[in-house]
Amino acid sequence: MPEVTATPAREPDGRTDRIARRTLLGVVGAWTAGGLGVALLGLTGRGATAAAIPVPTHDPRLHAILTGAASPAATGTPRPATGAGHDQVHEAVTKAFPAKTQGQGLQALPSSIVNGARQFDLVCEQIKWEVTPGNVVDAYAYNGQVPGPIMRVTEGERVRVRVTNKLDDSTAVHWHGQRVKNEVDGVPFITQPPIKPGETYTYEFTARPFGSHMYHSHHNATAQVGGGMLGPLLVAPKDPGVDPRYDKDELFIFNDSLGGLTINGKGFPATAPYTAKLGQRIRFRFMNEGQLIHPAHLHGLTLEVFARDGYPLPQPFRCDTLNVAPGERWDAIVVADEPGVWAFHCHILGHAEGSAGMFGMVTALIVSA
Amino acid sequence: MPEVTATPAREPDGRTDRIARRTLLGVVGAWTAGGLGVALLGLTGRGATAAAIPVPTHDPRLHAILTGAASPAATGTPRPATGAGHDQVHEAVTKAFPAKTQGQGLQALPSSIVNGARQFDLVCEQIKWEVTPGNVVDAYAYNGQVPGPIMRVTEGERVRVRVTNKLDDSTAVHWHGQRVKNEVDGVPFITQPPIKPGETYTYEFTARPFGSHMYHSHHNATAQVGGGMLGPLLVAPKDPGVDPRYDKDELFIFNDSLGGLTINGKGFPATAPYTAKLGQRIRFRFMNEGQLIHPAHLHGLTLEVFARDGYPLPQPFRCDTLNVAPGERWDAIVVADEPGVWAFHCHILGHAEGSAGMFGMVTALIVSA
Amino acid sequence: MPEVTATPAREPDGRTDRIARRTLLGVVGAWTAGGLGVALLGLTGRGATAAAIPVPTHDPRLHAILTGAASPAATGTPRPATGAGHDQVHEAVTKAFPAKTQGQGLQALPSSIVNGARQFDLVCEQIKWEVTPGNVVDAYAYNGQVPGPIMRVTEGERVRVRVTNKLDDSTAVHWHGQRVKNEVDGVPFITQPPIKPGETYTYEFTARPFGSHMYHSHHNATAQVGGGMLGPLLVAPKDPGVDPRYDKDELFIFNDSLGGLTINGKGFPATAPYTAKLGQRIRFRFMNEGQLIHPAHLHGLTLEVFARDGYPLPQPFRCDTLNVAPGERWDAIVVADEPGVWAFHCHILGHAEGSAGMFGMVTALIVSA
Repeated sequence: MPEVTATPAREPDGRTDRIARRTLLGVVGAWTAGGLGVALLGLTGRGATAAAIPVPTHDPRLHAILTGAASPAATGTPRPATGAGHDQVHEAVTKAFPAKTQGQGLQALPSSIVNGARQFDLVCEQIKWEVTPGNVVDAYAYNGQVPGPIMRVTEGERVRVRVTNKLDDSTAVHWHGQRVKNEVDGVPFITQPPIKPGETYTYEFTARPFGSHMYHSHHNATAQVGGGMLGPLLVAPKDPGVDPRYDKDELFIFNDSLGGLTINGKGFPATAPYTAKLGQRIRFRFMNEGQLIHPAHLHGLTLEVFARDGYPLPQPFRCDTLNVAPGERWDAIVVADEPGVWAFHCHILGHAEGSAGMFGMVTALIVSA
Repeated sequence: MPEVTATPAREPDGRTDRIARRTLLGVVGAWTAGGLGVALLGLTGRGATAAAIPVPTHDPRLHAILTGAASPAATGTPRPATGAGHDQVHEAVTKAFPAKTQGQGLQALPSSIVNGARQFDLVCEQIKWEVTPGNVVDAYAYNGQVPGPIMRVTEGERVRVRVTNKLDDSTAVHWHGQRVKNEVDGVPFITQPPIKPGETYTYEFTARPFGSHMYHSHHNATAQVGGGMLGPLLVAPKDPGVDPRYDKDELFIFNDSLGGLTINGKGFPATAPYTAKLGQRIRFRFMNEGQLIHPAHLHGLTLEVFARDGYPLPQPFRCDTLNVAPGERWDAIVVADEPGVWAFHCHILGHAEGSAGMFGMVTALIVSA
Repeated sequence: MPEVTATPAREPDGRTDRIARRTLLGVVGAWTAGGLGVALLGLTGRGATAAAIPVPTHDPRLHAILTGAASPAATGTPRPATGAGHDQVHEAVTKAFPAKTQGQGLQALPSSIVNGARQFDLVCEQIKWEVTPGNVVDAYAYNGQVPGPIMRVTEGERVRVRVTNKLDDSTAVHWHGQRVKNEVDGVPFITQPPIKPGETYTYEFTARPFGSHMYHSHHNATAQVGGGMLGPLLVAPKDPGVDPRYDKDELFIFNDSLGGLTINGKGFPATAPYTAKLGQRIRFRFMNEGQLIHPAHLHGLTLEVFARDGYPLPQPFRCDTLNVAPGERWDAIVVADEPGVWAFHCHILGHAEGSAGMFGMVTALIVSA
């Protein structure tokens, strides 16, 4: 397993930071004190061997997990492995977390002000995408990323997006949740002709309402969105005071087509853990771009849900399991008031754990002391 | 494609009106100004040929869409068509919207006051139902309609419903959401014997609580409700002041058995668009009579959700994607404050768009200036 | 059908009571007055023969229902039986309710105070579990029960649970919804090593937050939780005033793996009805330990939902259909203000009724005058 300290945190400003090794050792102190230290050395990356272990994709059984082939979706009802056999593959895949893969979605999308509008460029491409180590699938992508890059604008701002179609197919972009003029709504043959291969099409609109929104294909959408053509459109409120206070801003996007069951374009153990320092307030923006509901369950901490589809809730509510239906967005604050490695996964158990260990929609929130 | 002006609006009082041609041209002005006029002429019905185009069911690929045979549900994972091929079928099916089919559900159910009660007659029949052009399926129906006719009563009113069973099977009616006496609850062998073929059975109850409720079969219900035996039971509050103000009152009923994925008994492109004049307030009553959740997504406008299962929410909330689970009802106001043709569909993309264009749970809200 | 009077009510304190025969006759009075008395004699247990009727598992068609083999899940789209054939099997299965089966989950788990902590013992075992009469399946269980026994603690109390693993497989217990220290969170290879066969592992934590929570396996969880390793962890608030007032406290746990579609570990007609006296306030704690959403629909009465995942809602809401996603818990009060036998079932109709009558996720709330 690679050292946890090598995991980039996804900061809104594109800056990466690293989990300080000493704080992780701090987190892990309780385990060690409890006599579990040996089993966890691998996870915490204290041992040189652990840090050097590649994901052993030559093991056919483990390879099946890592590539999703052993997922219940692929094989029907899971047949439980017994005793040591199960534990071994389960341990291997767990210790592989966070596994390295090629490609990272949700990078900050650069913009510039041109003729009074904030201008972005999106390029639609067919790419190869590595979902879990060795599991490389054909994907549709914006700017080579799955999910597409993060677009950040401010409420009331004029936004211009130039979409260049390098696919073999036509496409169109819908600004899911935005109250745009009808002609830029992105529905082919209703509000625009499709953007044909080779064409560049320009959308221009005024960003409203604020909140967590999405952009995605609205053409052959089951295939194109399922295949990766989706991304977050985050509209900051003109008055920042309407948002609760938070220290970190994170995306949590479910998808269930491309390469199986993913969070932010990757399946466990290649999902990236979220990180926080004790006491930090993290904003999670949950989105579902898949075909199934996915109830996100966070261990040990509390979700304070304050917005739905970008709209502030009249009264926030608390929960630990937040059901996210396709097309929905939910915003929640998590106060990282307890250190540890907190599992964070879809609670449809067949989306998270099979007969050969955890896979798919599993990640963690790591709170360091 | 038939002229949009020929689309009857479903008014609560059974009156039909037509979308004035000039207002649609107004809506379309922006498109034309944007250089998209040519592509949209067909949709807006300005050309004589457009109005005369029958749904081209001789095209085998298009026929497959119109009959639902090409839906992901029927064929598994959608295989994207490429380039011009996809666009062609997609355009044809989109321009066919709203396509003409035989039969219309949700007509106003006449009633009369007999012995102090508002009396309705429901007749259960096995009929042929055209879901999309040429796709005619065997259905169970109330009064020859899918969904069944709209029953409107007032809170506290005495209601009498005489149900005549002309099916080959027994049946029973449950007043879903109503707080009736147990003996009229409609559960065979628990609260009543089943209504056998040829029999007429009379239910009598006092309407409460107010709100958006349903009537449907509670006997062999997977088959009978799935097959069409369902309808809305709308109970107006005694004090009209408890409802928000609205100009139009619309039903939006999901089903996913009979003939595939439907809104109000029809699949795209045979779904009827909703219409509004700029500034009007439309009340949508969402209901799910199917087996799957369906998140309704409205483009460009906002849903102000104010009631759940008929009960006023203590605090309304806003959203653009409203997840409706089987058996649930949700009431929302949409203020039509932006003109255009706004797509309105289930956001499980596989319920709305396949490799050969849009199908199933897709309609539009057309706001004219 | 066994006499309803033989149905034990599940009281929090483990005490059983019986529905007084005279009150049921009272409930049934309206039916009899309505001329339906004959059909209902069997259900109400007035006849000696009715009380003696065993579930007729020699009837192959009925046997198929009782064993779940005729469920839509097992056989695909239900093919409606016609006329008398359907009614006959439907009547037989309905009159078999509540059918006797071996084994009862959700018994009160004894505890004792040891070294300042409330101490419980859980034993993990592979057992045979009778889901419906004659349908005996291989299950994973805590203390021989599916769902596992009810653990009751008080907010702020120190809790110690000794888990003995008598399975052939490893396991681990997650305290779903509890804000524990990370090292007792129950995720193998992350927070602890798995508990191997033959081992006893001790968890100790301080109970918080209060409310309706769950314990379940977090190892090979699709198989182990699906197979029955789940139970309720009910944390009473330190200040009882934060809860609404109620007279009875009931669990309503969905599962959809072990032996099909179940409520509290049993499928209809072996589900246990809930009982109440007229005017009583019943607290229902809904939990979903399955893989699918399940919207619980209660006939004739109103759910006043006041907590989500244990957390009090800022404003309770009312409904009659409550969608419960996997991992969620919802608490609701039902005021039993109308006598009768009120059907209470998952409103995904295919989870409740097939071509051969009701099955799976169906039970009733019986309110006696």
